[in-house]
Amino acid sequence: MSSPSDIDALIDLMSKLPGLGPRSARRAVLHMVVRRDRILQPLADLMHRVSVGSYKCSICGNISMSPICKICQDEERTTGSLCVVENISDLWAMERAGVFDGHYHVLGGVLSALDSVGPDQLRVPQLVERVESQDFEEVILALNATVDGQTTAHYIADQLMGKCRVSLLAHGVPIGGELDYLDDGTISAAMYARKTLE
Amino acid sequence: MSSPSDIDALIDLMSKLPGLGPRSARRAVLHMVVRRDRILQPLADLMHRVSVGSYKCSICGNISMSPICKICQDEERTTGSLCVVENISDLWAMERAGVFDGHYHVLGGVLSALDSVGPDQLRVPQLVERVESQDFEEVILALNATVDGQTTAHYIADQLMGKCRVSLLAHGVPIGGELDYLDDGTISAAMYARKTLE
Repeated sequence: MSSPSDIDALIDLMSKLPGLGPRSARRAVLHMVVRRDRILQPLADLMHRVSVGSYKCSICGNISMSPICKICQDEERTTGSLCVVENISDLWAMERAGVFDGHYHVLGGVLSALDSVGPDQLRVPQLVERVESQDFEEVILALNATVDGQTTAHYIADQLMGKCRVSLLAHGVPIGGELDYLDDGTISAAMYARKTLE
Repeated sequence: MSSPSDIDALIDLMSKLPGLGPRSARRAVLHMVVRRDRILQPLADLMHRVSVGSYKCSICGNISMSPICKICQDEERTTGSLCVVENISDLWAMERAGVFDGHYHVLGGVLSALDSVGPDQLRVPQLVERVESQDFEEVILALNATVDGQTTAHYIADQLMGKCRVSLLAHGVPIGGELDYLDDGTISAAMYARKTLE
């Protein structure tokens, strides 16, 4: 065949990444091979370094190049509020938005009866322990606005009730959103949570 | 910030691959880091092996894990016909189609006045030399049906005229194509090249 084993294997493995299929993996590999010194070798080195040197932060669950991530180490961040997110990508999204300077707790998923994910498969016990041992003023449940996300949020709210103030992200019309393109659920949520101008 | 330097650098470099942007690069990197042993480390190893061990075949221009690629080494392939393609990805596409068992010549691009690409920037001199020194029955110009591709095909045909038989890929309605969705050029080409049933 045209492309020999290691190149084929590379294409095959690249095509397993989310967002890439066989065709885009071939394009990406050709792009890399042609730019060996600028892309292929640096990428190989970085992947090796991340592979041997990355950790799951033992406090929040973020990935990091140190056993405790930079956010948990950062002494300038507010210690009084904790933001609970489903996944690391959600933590990164919150950080990009730049509206929260407290600490995080990554659950690692959501409760799901269908996939038989219970509280113990997630980092819920660690969350409860963390809230009990530390003195948080507020726990913000920043879970996705999906059925499973909201079920999980309410389950966690029950667990934490009485231990500290628990809040949820607001639902409503997204910024830039047009009513005609929104689903009924979002419009209902925005209607129920409407604000009186004063 | 949330994701420390090496992880950030990996996301940044991945986002430079064709077909990936910042968002899909983040998703891909998270996917890899979570699957360290199955994806991240094997990918790092493969990239390193390809980076240090891949060659541009000195005969056809394909990439390969040996100085001369497997197609050029393969003694079971027809030696009488040569297929000229623009890029390595086109060579791979021809191989996937499985309709040609001769040898290849990768030009490395097309003539382009705008980008000031002349015959000497491409592997045209090597092609002429190859056709003069070897005894090909037919040279098939399998260049893309773009303006630059066809200009290049006609330039090469002029260079090779009298040295061997030169042919071009047929133009027409693609298999599965619907006339209503085809451009005028394709329909004209299909009309001019129509075949009489016998």
